[in-house]
Amino acid sequence: MPRIAVLAYSGGLDTTYCALWLREQGYSVHAVAVDTGGFSLDDRRTIEARAGAAAVAALTFVDGREELFRDTLRFLIFANALRGEVYPLCVSAERLVQARAVANYAKGVGAAALVHGSTGAGNDQVRFDVAFRVLAPEMEVLAPIRSQALSREEEMAYVAQRGVEIPPRTGMYSVNQGLWGTTIGGGETHASDGVLPELAYVMTSQRADRPTVPEVISIDFERGVPTALDGEALPPVALIERLNARAGRRGIGRGMHVGDTILGIKGRVAFEAPAATVLIAAHRELEKLVLSRQQQFWKRTLGDLYGANVHEARFFDPVMRDLEAFLESSQRKVTGHVTVRLEDRLATVLGATSPRSLMNAQKAKYGEGSKLWTGEEAAAFCKIFGVADKMQGNCK
Amino acid sequence: MPRIAVLAYSGGLDTTYCALWLREQGYSVHAVAVDTGGFSLDDRRTIEARAGAAAVAALTFVDGREELFRDTLRFLIFANALRGEVYPLCVSAERLVQARAVANYAKGVGAAALVHGSTGAGNDQVRFDVAFRVLAPEMEVLAPIRSQALSREEEMAYVAQRGVEIPPRTGMYSVNQGLWGTTIGGGETHASDGVLPELAYVMTSQRADRPTVPEVISIDFERGVPTALDGEALPPVALIERLNARAGRRGIGRGMHVGDTILGIKGRVAFEAPAATVLIAAHRELEKLVLSRQQQFWKRTLGDLYGANVHEARFFDPVMRDLEAFLESSQRKVTGHVTVRLEDRLATVLGATSPRSLMNAQKAKYGEGSKLWTGEEAAAFCKIFGVADKMQGNCK
Amino acid sequence: MPRIAVLAYSGGLDTTYCALWLREQGYSVHAVAVDTGGFSLDDRRTIEARAGAAAVAALTFVDGREELFRDTLRFLIFANALRGEVYPLCVSAERLVQARAVANYAKGVGAAALVHGSTGAGNDQVRFDVAFRVLAPEMEVLAPIRSQALSREEEMAYVAQRGVEIPPRTGMYSVNQGLWGTTIGGGETHASDGVLPELAYVMTSQRADRPTVPEVISIDFERGVPTALDGEALPPVALIERLNARAGRRGIGRGMHVGDTILGIKGRVAFEAPAATVLIAAHRELEKLVLSRQQQFWKRTLGDLYGANVHEARFFDPVMRDLEAFLESSQRKVTGHVTVRLEDRLATVLGATSPRSLMNAQKAKYGEGSKLWTGEEAAAFCKIFGVADKMQGNCK
Amino acid sequence: MPRIAVLAYSGGLDTTYCALWLREQGYSVHAVAVDTGGFSLDDRRTIEARAGAAAVAALTFVDGREELFRDTLRFLIFANALRGEVYPLCVSAERLVQARAVANYAKGVGAAALVHGSTGAGNDQVRFDVAFRVLAPEMEVLAPIRSQALSREEEMAYVAQRGVEIPPRTGMYSVNQGLWGTTIGGGETHASDGVLPELAYVMTSQRADRPTVPEVISIDFERGVPTALDGEALPPVALIERLNARAGRRGIGRGMHVGDTILGIKGRVAFEAPAATVLIAAHRELEKLVLSRQQQFWKRTLGDLYGANVHEARFFDPVMRDLEAFLESSQRKVTGHVTVRLEDRLATVLGATSPRSLMNAQKAKYGEGSKLWTGEEAAAFCKIFGVADKMQGNCK
Repeated sequence: MPRIAVLAYSGGLDTTYCALWLREQGYSVHAVAVDTGGFSLDDRRTIEARAGAAAVAALTFVDGREELFRDTLRFLIFANALRGEVYPLCVSAERLVQARAVANYAKGVGAAALVHGSTGAGNDQVRFDVAFRVLAPEMEVLAPIRSQALSREEEMAYVAQRGVEIPPRTGMYSVNQGLWGTTIGGGETHASDGVLPELAYVMTSQRADRPTVPEVISIDFERGVPTALDGEALPPVALIERLNARAGRRGIGRGMHVGDTILGIKGRVAFEAPAATVLIAAHRELEKLVLSRQQQFWKRTLGDLYGANVHEARFFDPVMRDLEAFLESSQRKVTGHVTVRLEDRLATVLGATSPRSLMNAQKAKYGEGSKLWTGEEAAAFCKIFGVADKMQGNCK
Repeated sequence: MPRIAVLAYSGGLDTTYCALWLREQGYSVHAVAVDTGGFSLDDRRTIEARAGAAAVAALTFVDGREELFRDTLRFLIFANALRGEVYPLCVSAERLVQARAVANYAKGVGAAALVHGSTGAGNDQVRFDVAFRVLAPEMEVLAPIRSQALSREEEMAYVAQRGVEIPPRTGMYSVNQGLWGTTIGGGETHASDGVLPELAYVMTSQRADRPTVPEVISIDFERGVPTALDGEALPPVALIERLNARAGRRGIGRGMHVGDTILGIKGRVAFEAPAATVLIAAHRELEKLVLSRQQQFWKRTLGDLYGANVHEARFFDPVMRDLEAFLESSQRKVTGHVTVRLEDRLATVLGATSPRSLMNAQKAKYGEGSKLWTGEEAAAFCKIFGVADKMQGNCK
Repeated sequence: MPRIAVLAYSGGLDTTYCALWLREQGYSVHAVAVDTGGFSLDDRRTIEARAGAAAVAALTFVDGREELFRDTLRFLIFANALRGEVYPLCVSAERLVQARAVANYAKGVGAAALVHGSTGAGNDQVRFDVAFRVLAPEMEVLAPIRSQALSREEEMAYVAQRGVEIPPRTGMYSVNQGLWGTTIGGGETHASDGVLPELAYVMTSQRADRPTVPEVISIDFERGVPTALDGEALPPVALIERLNARAGRRGIGRGMHVGDTILGIKGRVAFEAPAATVLIAAHRELEKLVLSRQQQFWKRTLGDLYGANVHEARFFDPVMRDLEAFLESSQRKVTGHVTVRLEDRLATVLGATSPRSLMNAQKAKYGEGSKLWTGEEAAAFCKIFGVADKMQGNCK
Repeated sequence: MPRIAVLAYSGGLDTTYCALWLREQGYSVHAVAVDTGGFSLDDRRTIEARAGAAAVAALTFVDGREELFRDTLRFLIFANALRGEVYPLCVSAERLVQARAVANYAKGVGAAALVHGSTGAGNDQVRFDVAFRVLAPEMEVLAPIRSQALSREEEMAYVAQRGVEIPPRTGMYSVNQGLWGTTIGGGETHASDGVLPELAYVMTSQRADRPTVPEVISIDFERGVPTALDGEALPPVALIERLNARAGRRGIGRGMHVGDTILGIKGRVAFEAPAATVLIAAHRELEKLVLSRQQQFWKRTLGDLYGANVHEARFFDPVMRDLEAFLESSQRKVTGHVTVRLEDRLATVLGATSPRSLMNAQKAKYGEGSKLWTGEEAAAFCKIFGVADKMQGNCK
């Protein structure tokens, strides 16, 4: 009986090459396609057709969207995590869910090898390798594209020779689309000042198609989790999908990001993340109403750390579980209602209310005087507040 | 000879009340009006007229704009400091420069008392008190508005009785305008979901007055300091003023912020900060090209800390000098050119270039393969990179 | 019916003064004495006698030791928290438990006022005031010693006049003894280079009384909590008390600490903390075997923060609950066995073992080669590990 | 003309093997022996003899001790850096100085290759590889022991065959001795609870040889740098050497440490660091007198980070220059005099004085009342200090 290789399958050129090559090495190839938010019906059909053409022994679809939310997106919202203050951690979060689904499947069928289609250049290889080794340390890890260092042209030729037709990319861009955002590489992103043309974007409407009249939406959160859009209760995945559509048709959430790869070089990508952009801005506003100064300061540092570890394939470091405990605890009071105005490429948080709000106009009219203390008490506070600095003397 | 009281003077109701009251206590009142970017010619004339009406013994104008940039704004740019990720630290930075100018003047004239017009409710009282006590520990600190707990109406009556006319505020808002931004309190800001009307804004154009055609501007930085706008070399203060006008007429840089006061309550303000918004976004983009991963992570935490200390009247804590040393060192390579597209309420950083850029398309085509290492080397790296997590085992 | 004032009672001069004074203001005085580890039978009798002499309406003893462990000491161990790397947070943790017991009692009897005997100089006043106000915001908070600014001599006279005899302190030191350590102030601690005489210490044996032969003890931990001493399972409080005796008779755990008070001045104290010293050293060693690099780094920073907040009366900031969640999560694997050699003033951790130990001689002989990777793989790892720094170039 | 290979030479088996092997590959071998504090006259003679026997083309001694202090030890003292709170970063700091001396030499002679004798198991390979690649990116880096994966026995045979006699190690331990400490691996360190015998230690006296009468020494610091021992001004290197002898003959500074290697596994070592132990304890005490609360908190986190980066071969990350700027700034006031009592294996800091001391018994008698504020002012401070927590309510 042939040894089973389980392949993280996307239906693209790289993973189709892997499927064919593995079969020729004598493996029984099981392809697992994990939907993390990017599969249209067409995508599904393409995957099926290509997997069929590549004669895989088995093709399995896994819907990874709920797990994606539960295991990472949830914490990325709690953390208000944006790399470089702009880029949502979409790709890295997806890879994790994909790797886990593949590893779980592989355990079920007693596979010998886990396979991914990453090259040796970027971050994905590290994410897959580490996840595979942590989750299934007994299995071999293969990355044929990386080890064979083939060009796209060589892969095309190999695949075509075996009767699988893959049309050349319809542009110069490589696109990764998912629930939490779309990342676009190639073309102008290779220069630090290149500007992408409108047509490179896939998740947000082109200028001509955008509504011109603003609209105001509302989002409800319960303990940090978005639970309703415009008053309609929705499960998180559905809410994010709907918000991607709503904000996406206004061109909201586009951006460029220069980032550091795990292997030490800089790279630039374009991205579109309508829902992530709006949700994080709304969530942050709500937090300002209910969290303490210290909570906000440390959440930011630890949220950055959480995001960095997701990005840098450190999801399995046990510190991540400790950070999740911190983040989850911090959301105890993050329950409330946020309104956001959506316009052409612009989402403006208008305000928030919360039953736990610490800002209470009665108690403390900011800048207008307050009955929580007298002027004399305030003077005493200021005097003692400055004692340590007065002792230090003027050091500037 | 009467004892001299030096008053931080703005020409408003509170400080005019102080001037009158101090004179009646027998002080010789020296008023010092420090321009931190907000004085128009009209403002100046009003200040002169009111100081005259209040019969101060001396009125002195100090141009504090360069000092403002040199001592705080510079570091706030290095730090990309925005409170709650949105609000530039305009008011707190200004208070510091004002307090220092007043204290220096007071030392020169051998004053007995330093006086400010803050109430007992907000942050400014702490900023003035601490700065005065650190800079001139031998002098008394007075804050008549705070200690007498007067209402605006009572102040108006007192002032009017002494023949000084101050027209009632032309709206419900209290406005603080300066080089680094304008802060607007009152009215809708008292609720956490109130939305300010267009006319409340003073530094950014109303909708009808904004240009409809986008423009692209460029900003050059040298070691983190903005040095040229659209290729024209400018001193920092002039550059910021010009950028405030350029971005302001497009309505860029408006926002709302819920913040924590030093005395422990939450408050909400509106703000307008066209130049700060654009400069920090541009500076951050340039940094991404030249700084290491660790520099970016720690700059963010320490930049937050720097901003928090400016906000919370901790500018004289000696740790601030240490943070400034850190921040200044981090700017060694932050030299380059950034382009920004300005549109209606939207500033989009298009890209950046730098002679020190680490992103070099030749060396490392992100996502397309690279000659810095082979696929085999990358595989080995990934394997060892994951050893520690593999040892820990699957903890999720 | 007279209004009830509930007094945090220690039986000392200050709180006895408070009891008498409160009665004369017309309060019905309920004294609550909370044992946080420092009450001998004699202490109890003294408290009863003095409370009787002061004619309090009621005296209640509360055993706060288990709560002390559960709510703070436990987390201080998880955090390895030592102020300035030496001083265990004994006093601040105790005040919290005392304040809570007093507030709970006061709620039960419908009291009007909460009273503590702190002066206006130190940290304790802040700890009591904040805790009382958070826990019973509806009650008045009184601190007669602080508000009346009496000297010890004046208090003595007042108390004596009312027939209560309190012998003068038997030395120049003020001593606070509890489960987690003893703090000694006064005398030589007023200078930054004063050295306390042997007889100032109360919890650790004098030189002449110490055993000369070393002994080796063992401590077991389960998820970070000490559970057995020399193999004998013990509840945490009993274990700490026994370890205080064992290590105390060898003079272990003495030290001096210069610290920052909440009000901004520096102070120096001597302390004795035999059990805390040994437990934290042992716990830290065990953690090194089982925690990841990141866990250790962030535990240290967040543990410092936790300790600082306990010290600085910030226990009720909600960030503390988030930190507790982090710390508790981090202890998942901190289970194992530690041996410690006790000698004259010296505790040396000899080693630790754990079922979760990551240090496994078979897998990875440190410095002797390893089968987890080949030399070639290590070379590749090193090469890529250095890529980012190589790109940056030599900056030193 | 043969290509030159410059070898970091220690005279031990590994580097002698390298010298011979390189010659047989046709290289002209230049050996560079860098003294970072560990060379006795005997060591020097052994190195000369072995280099001669291995027929290197050139042998150069470099005294790296001053550079070691200037470039790393200085900052490690400023940072109070101890890994896992116990282990001074001796080996990692030395490797850096050695690598730099070798690279500088190689540039001078136009070498083709840089060579070190590290295995593929530990940290040193990463430190050498990264430093070589950053400092001399144009040269090849060779590590023959790593790439050939030889056993000690195979190396011995190879060397002996070529007529070089190297006596077998006189014990089971591998020892690295330097100015900042000695690290001992092997034997009992392979288990997490092994205890080294007395004779394994080389830098600290055996029990029988230690003085029994305590002595008190004093150390002066200027801006954080130790400048005098017992009142005698000494350059830092001489001071450290003398203190190593003084404290070493009392057995001070021994310890065990379980640490994380860069490649992801745990390892345990014994160490002896008499001077480092005493200096850091003394320096920390002095800092407590003069630094602010915030300085101490952030110095600790950033000092840990600095130490971690030195340990983990991240010395060339530009963040290290930023951290050095922070640390150097923080030492502005760290000038003063510290006394330490030395006894058998015990160094006790007795006290410190400083012209910049913030602890002034006159101004602020800790716990005894103070004239910096009144009781009423203190009460007002406490009240407002607790406002934020009171608003949050009781969350425990």
